[in-house]
Amino acid sequence: MLFLVQMKVNPPTHLAPDEFARIKEEEKQRALEIQRQGKWPHLWRVTGKYSNVSVFDVDSNQELHDLLTSLPLFPFMEVSVTPMNTHPSALSE
Amino acid sequence: MLFLVQMKVNPPTHLAPDEFARIKEEEKQRALEIQRQGKWPHLWRVTGKYSNVSVFDVDSNQELHDLLTSLPLFPFMEVSVTPMNTHPSALSE
Amino acid sequence: MLFLVQMKVNPPTHLAPDEFARIKEEEKQRALEIQRQGKWPHLWRVTGKYSNVSVFDVDSNQELHDLLTSLPLFPFMEVSVTPMNTHPSALSE
Amino acid sequence: MLFLVQMKVNPPTHLAPDEFARIKEEEKQRALEIQRQGKWPHLWRVTGKYSNVSVFDVDSNQELHDLLTSLPLFPFMEVSVTPMNTHPSALSE
Amino acid sequence: MLFLVQMKVNPPTHLAPDEFARIKEEEKQRALEIQRQGKWPHLWRVTGKYSNVSVFDVDSNQELHDLLTSLPLFPFMEVSVTPMNTHPSALSE
Amino acid sequence: MLFLVQMKVNPPTHLAPDEFARIKEEEKQRALEIQRQGKWPHLWRVTGKYSNVSVFDVDSNQELHDLLTSLPLFPFMEVSVTPMNTHPSALSE
Amino acid sequence: MLFLVQMKVNPPTHLAPDEFARIKEEEKQRALEIQRQGKWPHLWRVTGKYSNVSVFDVDSNQELHDLLTSLPLFPFMEVSVTPMNTHPSALSE
Amino acid sequence: MLFLVQMKVNPPTHLAPDEFARIKEEEKQRALEIQRQGKWPHLWRVTGKYSNVSVFDVDSNQELHDLLTSLPLFPFMEVSVTPMNTHPSALSE
Amino acid sequence: MLFLVQMKVNPPTHLAPDEFARIKEEEKQRALEIQRQGKWPHLWRVTGKYSNVSVFDVDSNQELHDLLTSLPLFPFMEVSVTPMNTHPSALSE
Amino acid sequence: MLFLVQMKVNPPTHLAPDEFARIKEEEKQRALEIQRQGKWPHLWRVTGKYSNVSVFDVDSNQELHDLLTSLPLFPFMEVSVTPMNTHPSALSE
Repeated sequence: MLFLVQMKVNPPTHLAPDEFARIKEEEKQRALEIQRQGKWPHLWRVTGKYSNVSVFDVDSNQELHDLLTSLPLFPFMEVSVTPMNTHPSALSE
Repeated sequence: MLFLVQMKVNPPTHLAPDEFARIKEEEKQRALEIQRQGKWPHLWRVTGKYSNVSVFDVDSNQELHDLLTSLPLFPFMEVSVTPMNTHPSALSE
Repeated sequence: MLFLVQMKVNPPTHLAPDEFARIKEEEKQRALEIQRQGKWPHLWRVTGKYSNVSVFDVDSNQELHDLLTSLPLFPFMEVSVTPMNTHPSALSE
Repeated sequence: MLFLVQMKVNPPTHLAPDEFARIKEEEKQRALEIQRQGKWPHLWRVTGKYSNVSVFDVDSNQELHDLLTSLPLFPFMEVSVTPMNTHPSALSE
Repeated sequence: MLFLVQMKVNPPTHLAPDEFARIKEEEKQRALEIQRQGKWPHLWRVTGKYSNVSVFDVDSNQELHDLLTSLPLFPFMEVSVTPMNTHPSALSE
Repeated sequence: MLFLVQMKVNPPTHLAPDEFARIKEEEKQRALEIQRQGKWPHLWRVTGKYSNVSVFDVDSNQELHDLLTSLPLFPFMEVSVTPMNTHPSALSE
Repeated sequence: MLFLVQMKVNPPTHLAPDEFARIKEEEKQRALEIQRQGKWPHLWRVTGKYSNVSVFDVDSNQELHDLLTSLPLFPFMEVSVTPMNTHPSALSE
Repeated sequence: MLFLVQMKVNPPTHLAPDEFARIKEEEKQRALEIQRQGKWPHLWRVTGKYSNVSVFDVDSNQELHDLLTSLPLFPFMEVSVTPMNTHPSALSE
Repeated sequence: MLFLVQMKVNPPTHLAPDEFARIKEEEKQRALEIQRQGKWPHLWRVTGKYSNVSVFDVDSNQELHDLLTSLPLFPFMEVSVTPMNTHPSALSE
Repeated sequence: MLFLVQMKVNPPTHLAPDEFARIKEEEKQRALEIQRQGKWPHLWRVTGKYSNVSVFDVDSNQELHDLLTSLPLFPFMEVSVTPMNTHPSALSE
């Protein structure tokens, strides 16, 4: 089941830079992990912004929520979730 | 080069139903054609709405514009275009 | 799997009143049918508006989309879909 | 009398983490208490966000206000309140 | 129980002027009737707009909905409903 | 001359709690004082929010401005002011 | 008493062009009349838009409402009204 | 050449009160100076808000920019600039 | 003097297609004419939309207004005008 | 390939003034450098705001992203990116 997820990161000004750098590194590892599980098939950077466009492939809303809230940067994100399904004119997918 | 394109269709009330049905059928054929050319790798339906989430893979803004304006339903669409590029944490793409 | 679905109806001014009345009656029957299937556990009227707050319980985004687009009033609706999951402080559900 | 209440929590950056954790625990107990009183029949988590969708069943606006402002997290919330009533096509409720 | 209700009228361009004039006259009578019942204690015109600010005093959301939808101009209105309760600094009310 | 005034309070996180409590107490006294002068005939609490709906009865814009800016909580408020006048269907007022 | 009034005209597509031209001419005469009364001291065109920025000088909200609703183009306008008063740093006015 | 300029001041919470008071005093002097030069013919206070409505009369965009950015409060302002020109129905100006 | 002007065209559904085609052709000729006068140095198409991004170089707001309102498509456009001036980091211009 | 890029700077209140001044100076040098490379053909200041209107000429979304994120002020900016292409009525470009 596919979801379009758009995440905008608002870097926290109350954290020390190296603390935030550490969190970002953890974020990268966690993101790679979820992608390897096949749950996060698409992850693109929005040109000119500290935000991404993602597509998640999960079995339930709960699973999607657990994955997103497990991201170290989650507390600093504005997240929008758009459920998607097959388009009648789609060639494949 | 990737673009997130979101298209919302506002069915025209001033057209006869069969005329609009004809345009929709042309739209489907044109969409399949562009997908076969590899220019439109992803096309999903937004759950509960007459709109789609698409990803286009083109060589220039001009090419994207020409493809979008070639769609028979283009005059009845609200279109948003978001340029994207590689995300540093993306596993592949 | 639960979704909050909010539907606002914009009555079409280009349809004859009795034609729209017929569609509304079909809508009521279809809504009752889906509720009997257990897919639409909650349907409330928003006070002072021609819109509703609903909760759907479905197995996939696709199923939700098919149910919503099967509603006779769908072409005259603005629909927002919010995926939900269990709240850690919820007593039951 | 039913109200749709949507609460978005903006975690305070000026509070110490353990202080905020304490408040969150109090919040959970208070939420369970109100639910046991039958005043808060539905509480769901919005997928991907630190916010909830709730339905309150109260006898007056005043009662709803007193319940909401009694929540320990109230000072850190954006709350929207939508009065609801019976929908003519609702099977039960 | 008090509600702030704000109503903006969008005059229908598809109705004949005298037909709309007739509806407006019915609206006035119905509004006076509800006010005489004590359910609509305040009705003010917003300066410079075809809209009003009202306060309704009702026993339930359902009653408010029935009153509002009974207004002949209801189909041509954008309505916002804000539940209110006693303010701790209010002298009376 | 009547004005609808809606005030949303954003509690300042940079003030000590007892300092803000002191200001709130001053606010209450000032609000009662203005109401006794007959300038602030209606003051209601918006259910579920730290904001109010008020009606002021003043002789000029200047008087309204002076009254509002005299409120101790004014620096922490988002204020919207809507001029109103007699509605042709109003029973009294 | 001063009010900033911003008027955006949405030309009606359901009226014959010469009918709308007649209304526009009436509008011009009425506008000149109000200005001669000293009630409409400033009237400017917004560059690039079919809208104006005006300042009205009236004795009450009611007077402003009567003046605005007397404008032949009023039914085709979006109007915003902002009450103003003396600025402490204003040299004159 | 006329511009409608609307300035909303967001008092900085990170500055000491007397420091901000000093800046406000400088602002007043600078505003009076620009008005004396005839560049700032109108300056009104928006009722109930810490913001103003102004009309500037300048020879170029650059001149307007230089004047606005010379205001001591500029760093704490949200500014909107609307170019204006003569209205065909304006009596004078 | 430079202005960023963004024009979105909303094709009129109440005009016959060939009538609108005629207006579009007139629009093209007028646009070329203004560009040859050096008043419209930049005109770009927004990818995926029936709208443009333009830069006008004029001597006054009035001149800009006269140029824009002289465009045959003006009645069917949403126009936004942003005055611009030299940027301190600009290499040339 | 052209992009309209609009950058609004929100000066950070948590940085020391001289630290921010240093970053601004680095920003200027970097901006001049990119302009000399021909990648940033237009850079204008928006009148009355700490923001700019720019046109970038790049070969890909990736290149645009790398250029923008290389700007020292990038962390303090709200950036909007609009892909553009040739307009059918453009004289040159």
